[in-house]
Amino acid sequence: LPTPRTPQHYSSSSSRAAGMNGNGPSKLVDPLEDPLPGVGTYEDFNTIDWVREKSKDRDRHREITNKSRQSTVALLHSVSDAFSGWLLMLLVGLMSGALAGGIDIAAHWLTDMKGGVCLIGFWFNHEHCCWKSNEATFQDRDRCPQWQSWAELITGTSEGAFAYIVNYLMYIFWALLFSFLAVTLVRAFAPYACGSGIPEIKTILSGFIIRGYLGKWTLIIKTITLVLAVSSGLSLGKEGPLVHVACCCANILCHLFTKYRKNEAKRREVLSAAAAVGVSVAFGAPIGGVLFSLEEVSYYFPLKTLWRSFFAALVAAFTLRSINPFGNSRLVLFYVEFHAPWHLVELAPFVLLGIFGGLWGALFIRANIAWCRRRKTTRLGHYPVIEVLVVAALTALLAYPNSYTRMSGAELISELFNDCSLLDSSQLCGYKQVSANTSETGVGNSLADRPAGAGLYTALWQLALALVFKMMITVITFGMKVPSGLFIPSMAVGAIAGRLLGVGMEQLAYYNHDSFIFKGWCSPGADCITPGLYAMVGAAACLGGVTRMTVSLVVIMFELTGGLEYIVPLMAATMTSKWVADAFGREGIYEAHIRLNGYPFLEPKEEFEHSSLTVDVMRPKRSDPALAVLTQEGMTVGQVEALVESTHYSGFPVVVSQESQRLVGFVLRRDLLISIDNARKRQEGVVSASQVVFTEHAPSVAADAPPPLRLRGIMDLSPFTVTDHTPMDITVDIFRKLGLRQCLVTHNGRLLGIITKKDILKHMAQIANRDPDSILFN
Amino acid sequence: LPTPRTPQHYSSSSSRAAGMNGNGPSKLVDPLEDPLPGVGTYEDFNTIDWVREKSKDRDRHREITNKSRQSTVALLHSVSDAFSGWLLMLLVGLMSGALAGGIDIAAHWLTDMKGGVCLIGFWFNHEHCCWKSNEATFQDRDRCPQWQSWAELITGTSEGAFAYIVNYLMYIFWALLFSFLAVTLVRAFAPYACGSGIPEIKTILSGFIIRGYLGKWTLIIKTITLVLAVSSGLSLGKEGPLVHVACCCANILCHLFTKYRKNEAKRREVLSAAAAVGVSVAFGAPIGGVLFSLEEVSYYFPLKTLWRSFFAALVAAFTLRSINPFGNSRLVLFYVEFHAPWHLVELAPFVLLGIFGGLWGALFIRANIAWCRRRKTTRLGHYPVIEVLVVAALTALLAYPNSYTRMSGAELISELFNDCSLLDSSQLCGYKQVSANTSETGVGNSLADRPAGAGLYTALWQLALALVFKMMITVITFGMKVPSGLFIPSMAVGAIAGRLLGVGMEQLAYYNHDSFIFKGWCSPGADCITPGLYAMVGAAACLGGVTRMTVSLVVIMFELTGGLEYIVPLMAATMTSKWVADAFGREGIYEAHIRLNGYPFLEPKEEFEHSSLTVDVMRPKRSDPALAVLTQEGMTVGQVEALVESTHYSGFPVVVSQESQRLVGFVLRRDLLISIDNARKRQEGVVSASQVVFTEHAPSVAADAPPPLRLRGIMDLSPFTVTDHTPMDITVDIFRKLGLRQCLVTHNGRLLGIITKKDILKHMAQIANRDPDSILFN
Repeated sequence: LPTPRTPQHYSSSSSRAAGMNGNGPSKLVDPLEDPLPGVGTYEDFNTIDWVREKSKDRDRHREITNKSRQSTVALLHSVSDAFSGWLLMLLVGLMSGALAGGIDIAAHWLTDMKGGVCLIGFWFNHEHCCWKSNEATFQDRDRCPQWQSWAELITGTSEGAFAYIVNYLMYIFWALLFSFLAVTLVRAFAPYACGSGIPEIKTILSGFIIRGYLGKWTLIIKTITLVLAVSSGLSLGKEGPLVHVACCCANILCHLFTKYRKNEAKRREVLSAAAAVGVSVAFGAPIGGVLFSLEEVSYYFPLKTLWRSFFAALVAAFTLRSINPFGNSRLVLFYVEFHAPWHLVELAPFVLLGIFGGLWGALFIRANIAWCRRRKTTRLGHYPVIEVLVVAALTALLAYPNSYTRMSGAELISELFNDCSLLDSSQLCGYKQVSANTSETGVGNSLADRPAGAGLYTALWQLALALVFKMMITVITFGMKVPSGLFIPSMAVGAIAGRLLGVGMEQLAYYNHDSFIFKGWCSPGADCITPGLYAMVGAAACLGGVTRMTVSLVVIMFELTGGLEYIVPLMAATMTSKWVADAFGREGIYEAHIRLNGYPFLEPKEEFEHSSLTVDVMRPKRSDPALAVLTQEGMTVGQVEALVESTHYSGFPVVVSQESQRLVGFVLRRDLLISIDNARKRQEGVVSASQVVFTEHAPSVAADAPPPLRLRGIMDLSPFTVTDHTPMDITVDIFRKLGLRQCLVTHNGRLLGIITKKDILKHMAQIANRDPDSILFN
Repeated sequence: LPTPRTPQHYSSSSSRAAGMNGNGPSKLVDPLEDPLPGVGTYEDFNTIDWVREKSKDRDRHREITNKSRQSTVALLHSVSDAFSGWLLMLLVGLMSGALAGGIDIAAHWLTDMKGGVCLIGFWFNHEHCCWKSNEATFQDRDRCPQWQSWAELITGTSEGAFAYIVNYLMYIFWALLFSFLAVTLVRAFAPYACGSGIPEIKTILSGFIIRGYLGKWTLIIKTITLVLAVSSGLSLGKEGPLVHVACCCANILCHLFTKYRKNEAKRREVLSAAAAVGVSVAFGAPIGGVLFSLEEVSYYFPLKTLWRSFFAALVAAFTLRSINPFGNSRLVLFYVEFHAPWHLVELAPFVLLGIFGGLWGALFIRANIAWCRRRKTTRLGHYPVIEVLVVAALTALLAYPNSYTRMSGAELISELFNDCSLLDSSQLCGYKQVSANTSETGVGNSLADRPAGAGLYTALWQLALALVFKMMITVITFGMKVPSGLFIPSMAVGAIAGRLLGVGMEQLAYYNHDSFIFKGWCSPGADCITPGLYAMVGAAACLGGVTRMTVSLVVIMFELTGGLEYIVPLMAATMTSKWVADAFGREGIYEAHIRLNGYPFLEPKEEFEHSSLTVDVMRPKRSDPALAVLTQEGMTVGQVEALVESTHYSGFPVVVSQESQRLVGFVLRRDLLISIDNARKRQEGVVSASQVVFTEHAPSVAADAPPPLRLRGIMDLSPFTVTDHTPMDITVDIFRKLGLRQCLVTHNGRLLGIITKKDILKHMAQIANRDPDSILFN
């Protein structure tokens, strides 16, 4: 069996470094013994090679481990290297928690400023102002002389139509001011600070490079403008942007540690953890945050990252709690405590809410994407400031008259989730007081089982209007050039719908205690239906419909209530919502935005269903010119340069000879250019006529010929290959699991073509009858 | 560029099926158009090929989807196929929940039987018996005339030394009887039912096949013997075996659905979910269960499985709750409610507990593995029944006199976790009653801050003895031929240590309120130290040290307490414990047992640290004979048979020709033998001189020659290849992520060798200075 088994095939392991991008010592006498700056790095808007990056990190780690046996200093270095990951996580948690606390406090203050000002110090928010004044009783916390509405301050009275108009105008003024500041700051200093950031972070985590997206300017501007955008009353939340903020923190802190600064794959592990931190501080749900990162955002999520994310998420949650921005010592944003259990019959309305959530999710995604596409393609996109101002004005104008839209999204959700207690003065609890001595309510407490009163009917009308308003305005708000999260608006829509249905069920039960539906579990006087729970289930359903989250959503909601009891309704609604929404299109809002922006993102969740073969997808296509290849010897520097310049490919396969087409390795364009450039400058005798050699041993050249340029050091000796007959589903699987950016295609041992991530994405777009040129980047 | 681009490279996608193991129609006229029975299946103790299995499932799914457009019946079939996964999960949850409930009830009854019998019906357990008698008051629930200890029944009195001895002897008698029954049943009917099952399930989930390990006999026998083993008082738990039981349920239920019955990869997704179900019913912790499956057990865990596992885990937990085996309507095994917060200073003892847990974990693993190795290699292994009886007798003999070892492990842990309430009659709460009018305790409640009394001192002594006893006996118990879980014994050890430390801290604080450590947060009368929390932290630390679980462990504990508050202590202890234990060896107990048994398990958590190249690991080695290959044409049936018979390889590469060594495909030994055998029987003219042809088009043969045997249908046209220079860490990564069982090695486009999972494991064993022949299976 004449296998070409020359000695170097059995060369000792230490020579392997020659195959890597210049890491470690090489046994070959090679001009590239020390890696050139730039070799092995990536350009902007390019995809990283996960396998190489991780291999590079293992090399680095191996080196440190080997050295650590030699001296104490090296040992300490090795230990500090091992713990640097944990230290980094601690710092990310602390910084993100602190920032989130700051954002909460500032947003609360500015939101209150739209309504009035504190006389004892304008830097106090409403609640804080009344605490300071020491006069407010517990029930009347929000009324104190020190806090004056704008009408009071300007006209001296808070009564009457004139005062109302003054307040209304001031409300609109502040909304316009805040939104103007937000959009101007974003445009002037950090265009990447707009939007929720989650689609881009998903793309970055999958291995794409967008320089500056997680930089310090983005962090600073996003933090400030997020506060402004939330305070302006626009229909947006701060949860998505908080994920972006946490990722910025992580990215910046990565620069403190060589291990993470220099390795794109390792840095992405930290970013995955940061995504968990973002959700953890947004909702006070560390476990939910970790699962969110795992389920929704991350691409490569090793178990080590799971544990570290959990640690960082906890640190952040406790940092936030020690800042205590909500003033209630609670970890969670919406603290809910339900007492009544739910009954199996109630699963029907819960599933109904799931269907509503799914329908709304699908509708919202379509409408929002259509609107965003219009923004991208028409003149609308040229006036982002005007767009934001118009939407802010419209929002403020329509929102102010209705108390449920005037309050912030988080407050609204909080109120809708709440159960009515006996002393609750909220309109939502405007039940008729049934006296305890009537026969009907002789048993049971007076809290439960009451007919709706006038207050509640008003509230229901207002809620219905708020629902329509929120559904409309969110579609045009999400995607504007301000930081905007989608969690709170989606949850608000669902919570309103849920509360409406819940109150409906409650009244139905009140008037039909004896019907077969309610008999047996909802007797008169029993506290059987909790409208707050319906609101919660509705919120989960709508959020699920929009984002297609499942486990993480249920766990986040579970962390809010803290009782396993209510997981089943949440699960039923989330599951229904996902199924209904998936029937209209499998993409969640984030994937839809990724596609809209043409990022090269290979969805890890979706299966490749088509039965193509790799040969159908690879390049060159049948009609194309042949694949551009380099030969391992025999080409001159001039020929190589000509080949590189005549094409735009980012890499070239190296073959034994043009005739045999047997594959030797793969060279990246960038590395090739840098190396030749460097050799021409530094190395003597390298001219255009010099031979370029990729073999292990230099060929013998004529005495008068210029010395050859040896480039084996920059060649990847282990390029990935698949055969032309490999089904595309397997090839896609390989790309996803290994995080490749290209793969060579062979037929019977001969090089036939190349397939890249972009080719796959284009092919998938083609199958789905979309424009393959919508995939923009490499 | 002379790429060999013959038309078939661009053949339409529909011919791809020819490359698969006989799925779908093939365009080629091939005797194997219909797959032969057996082709594409696996033998016992072999590793599956994940990529092919998943590709097969996608083919099946594609076919169903395509058909569904044609008729309503096919559409319904497609829908039912899509929902069969959910239905299966529901069934797994229901069945496992019901079984777990049955096991709990039966074990409770048999455990009580060791102490006495119920006069109104021997089938009542102690608690149930006293409920039935209607005489017991709440405080005195465990004393009623209907329940008689054996001494009472036999001698008529429960007082005195004689009665004690009678009870003692009866206790030992029942222990011996139960353990004898358990070990005999296991040996007679289902040898696979012994042990915890988790190491084997990990191996199975990683793609190994052990027929019968998850079969119906294993299920029946494991369920029965688990009850007996737990009741016999041996130091073992039922948590690990419950995972095995749930996996058996899942495997059996898989047979109801073609999709899962016929596909090894799909079935493993269900088994992953079943592992989550097992932990969910063991602890009443569905989220923790899912994370356990993700972190500890599963190999391939797509997000779809995450969501389904969660569903199944919830169904199981609620099924168990509706059975209500603990009689307290609680979902969780140990329900704990702490009220006092913890202080930062307390992190020091928590970390101390972590160190203890880590040390014990490392020690336990070494001692247990040493003992198990002795059992495997010496004559001890020949007498499993005697071994079990001796250990059971020893356990009963030593355990009875100490009330903390006499009670079951779960009861012990439950008692140790509990906080002392005012009326608690337990010895552990034997504090001196300080009268409320002394100056010292004038403030604060009398619950907290009390000096230890005589009762507590006795309890502490007994606990210390129990700790030593449990530590010793668990080492020799785990691994015996009875079902045995490790969670409860590990947690018991940790809980005892934690409680001891907790009481110590409490007393230290009581006598040193003014010292700088306690000043400020632990003033006299304050309820500042909760010994129950220490027990919990200790339990987590010890379990973490033994199993090296992290996130899932913390989440399980979190679900027991339900408060995020106590996550930080748990996390600190678990983290310390893992670090300390890892310093002595990175393997958890399950990995250690996998290695002891020589299963081919490629640990997904550990990085491959060595700097070998693939060429160093592949076969043939330098001194070996050349690689056995088939050529795509030119070999006769007789030659092929001779080659197959002269080797023991499970597959053969197919090359263009012996000279070129260019790779065409890969044929499995099993498929080759079945096909040739079938052709000889069924196909006319196939004799030893017939040519075997793997090419697409049959070669022209002489008129008088026998017709060729065409075997392209069984050839894998897309074998995985790596180059000889690929660093081993990358190769290992590919094997792990894609779940390969073999990979071909090429050099410059020529076939050089082959590398299998076993080769990698042997190489890793060699690096770690272990015997490479300890890897036993393929």
